[in-house]
Amino acid sequence: MSFKWLESPLHPVSTSHQEQALARQGQLTKPPGSLGRLEQLAVQLAALQGTDQPGVDPVRIVVFAADHGIVEEGVSAFPQAVTVEMVKNFSRGGAAISVLARSLGARLEVVNVGTAGEVGELQGVINQPVAQGTRSFLTQSAMDEAQLGSALAAGRDAVARGVKEGMRLFIGGDMGIGNTTAATAVACALLGLDATELAGPGTGLDEKGVAHKAEIMKQALSHHQAALNTPLDILQHVGGFEIAALAGAYIHAAQQGVPSLVDGFIATSAALAAVKLKPELADWLLLAHASAEPGHRRMVEAMGQAPLLDLGMRLGEGSGAAVAVNLLRSAVDLHNNMATFAEAGVSEGD
Amino acid sequence: MSFKWLESPLHPVSTSHQEQALARQGQLTKPPGSLGRLEQLAVQLAALQGTDQPGVDPVRIVVFAADHGIVEEGVSAFPQAVTVEMVKNFSRGGAAISVLARSLGARLEVVNVGTAGEVGELQGVINQPVAQGTRSFLTQSAMDEAQLGSALAAGRDAVARGVKEGMRLFIGGDMGIGNTTAATAVACALLGLDATELAGPGTGLDEKGVAHKAEIMKQALSHHQAALNTPLDILQHVGGFEIAALAGAYIHAAQQGVPSLVDGFIATSAALAAVKLKPELADWLLLAHASAEPGHRRMVEAMGQAPLLDLGMRLGEGSGAAVAVNLLRSAVDLHNNMATFAEAGVSEGD
Repeated sequence: MSFKWLESPLHPVSTSHQEQALARQGQLTKPPGSLGRLEQLAVQLAALQGTDQPGVDPVRIVVFAADHGIVEEGVSAFPQAVTVEMVKNFSRGGAAISVLARSLGARLEVVNVGTAGEVGELQGVINQPVAQGTRSFLTQSAMDEAQLGSALAAGRDAVARGVKEGMRLFIGGDMGIGNTTAATAVACALLGLDATELAGPGTGLDEKGVAHKAEIMKQALSHHQAALNTPLDILQHVGGFEIAALAGAYIHAAQQGVPSLVDGFIATSAALAAVKLKPELADWLLLAHASAEPGHRRMVEAMGQAPLLDLGMRLGEGSGAAVAVNLLRSAVDLHNNMATFAEAGVSEGD
Repeated sequence: MSFKWLESPLHPVSTSHQEQALARQGQLTKPPGSLGRLEQLAVQLAALQGTDQPGVDPVRIVVFAADHGIVEEGVSAFPQAVTVEMVKNFSRGGAAISVLARSLGARLEVVNVGTAGEVGELQGVINQPVAQGTRSFLTQSAMDEAQLGSALAAGRDAVARGVKEGMRLFIGGDMGIGNTTAATAVACALLGLDATELAGPGTGLDEKGVAHKAEIMKQALSHHQAALNTPLDILQHVGGFEIAALAGAYIHAAQQGVPSLVDGFIATSAALAAVKLKPELADWLLLAHASAEPGHRRMVEAMGQAPLLDLGMRLGEGSGAAVAVNLLRSAVDLHNNMATFAEAGVSEGD
C-alpha cells in the first residue's frame, strides 16, 4: 500500500474569486458585515470552489465505521457489538445521521473500514475492512503500516466516489465503540498534551470511568512514545481505522477542490492529524460544531478557527456537521440571490 | 383602542407531552443527551404544542416596518428613506429575509406599521400604519397611548392571520432606520441600565457616532424618567411602532399556543418588554441568535436563556431567526423519526 498519493498538492485556492465575492458582499442590500460569519463562509466557499456562485449541493456524507481493540480495557459505556448494530441502523434509516441526511437530501454512504463483527451485505454500506478492528494500543500498535495505508486509502476512495457524482461539500462521520479513546490519544500525541487534560466521558462514562480511560491512555502513550514522531506514526500506533480514513478523506477532498465540513471530536482529531501532515489543508476545513466532549476545545484551538455551532452535541456519525449544512446553504443563498443596492434602488449608508 | 386583549391568559403548556417527549429521547438510538440542545428543543416544542409530533412548519415570518422621529438627532448611518426602500426590496424578493424565507419555504409577510414615506400597494405588504413614523422621543413621547394600542394590535392581527393559516412557529422581524436607538432605550428603561452600557453601532456608526447616540438616549431617558413605570409606558415613550407590534405579536402567539423564534437586537427588546408584562411568556420564546450589537448580551442575560446561534449577525429583518429555523427542524425531525433501541435492535449502554 503506497502513501505516495498523500504527497499530491492540494487544489489551488482562487484569490480572484475571493476578491470578487468580498466585493459583492459589500454591494448587497444590508449594512456591510451585518451577516457576520455567513458572509465569511460565502467568500471562503467562493475562493475554495473557484466560482462566483458558491454552493454546497450535492453534499455527501460518508460515515466510516470500525472497532477498537482498546475497548478490552473497559473504556466505553457501550458494548462493542453496538458498532455493527449501528451500521445496520444507518442502513435502515433509523440513526440520527440517517434522519439528518434524508432531511438534507444528502447522499449518505457508510463504509465499514473494520468492524469486529460481520456487517454483511447492506443497502448503502460498502465493506472495505482493513481488519476486524484494531489491536489494543495499550501495548501494541493499533495497526501496522500497511493497514494504515489501507485505512487512509478507504477515505480517499470514498471521496473519489463522491467527486465522480459531483459532490461540492464533503462530510465525514464516524462510528466505532471506543473511538473517543483513540481520538483522544491521537490528539494528545499531536498536541503534546497529557491524557488527563483531554479525556472525557465519550458515550457516557462516569467520573471513575473517565479517570480509568485517562490512565489507560497515559500508559499507552508512554509505551509508544518513542515511535510517535509523525502524524502518520500517531495514527498508526494509537489511532483507528475510521480516524485514518477520515484523515485520508479530508486530504483527498482538498486535492480534488472540495471543501469539508468537519464534525466533532473524532472527526476533528482526524482533521488535526491531516493538517499536521499538510498544513495548507486548514483552508479547506470548516469546523461545524463545538463538541460537548471536553477535549474538543483544545483541538479546535490548535486548528485556529471557531466552530459554527455550539449546541452541546456529542454523538458523532457526522451529525453535528449535518446540522450545520443549512448554515452554509443560507450563506451561499444570500450571497448568490440577494439584490445589490443598485439593483434594488436602496440608498447606501455613510 | 383597548389593551384588554393583552390580559387574556397564555395557552397552557402540556407537562404530559413534555414528559412523554423526554422519555422518548431516552429511547432513541444515541447515547443519552448526546444531541444536546436539539433534544431540549424537541421536548420544549412538544410541551408548547401539546403534541407527540412537534413541528415548525408552516413557519411564518412577519417583518414589521416603521420609522423613528429620533433619527433627526443623527443616530443612524443610513438615511430614513431606506425604510421604505427596503420594504420595496422585501416585496421584490431581494432582501436577506426574502432570500431566507424562499429557501425555507416560509410565508413572508411585511406589515407597514408606520413608515415616514409612502409604501403604496405592494405584493406581500400590508399597510396598517399607526402614523408616519414616531415622534422624536428626545423631548416628546414616541407615540400616544392610542398609537401604542394600534401598534400592539397590528402585531396581534398579524399573528391572527398566521394562526388562520395553520402557523406552527412565528418569527417576527423588524425594519426601521433608527430602531436600534429606540430598542436600546427600551432595554435601558426595562433593565435600569445606563445608555452608555448598551449603545452600539446599529447599521454602522463609528465610535463618535455611538457616543452621540448614547448621549441622545441618556437625555431622552432622563427627560421621560418619571413616566417610565410599566413596560407599556416604556414602549409608548421611547419605543417604536414595529417594536410594540412585535411585543403584541409574541403575546398573541403564546395566547394561541404558537411558539416564537425571537430574532436579534430589536426583536429581543420587544420580547423583553412583553416578558416584563407577562412573565409566563418566557416559556414560549426561543432566542434564535446572539446579535453582534453589543447591548444584546445584557437583554439575553435578563431573558435567562442562551441563544441558539452566535454568528456575528446584526441585520434584523428576522434574518437571524430565519437562519435558526433549520436547527428546530433538525431537532423535531430527529425526535420524530429516529429509531428507538428496541426498534433498531441496538444494545443499550451501562
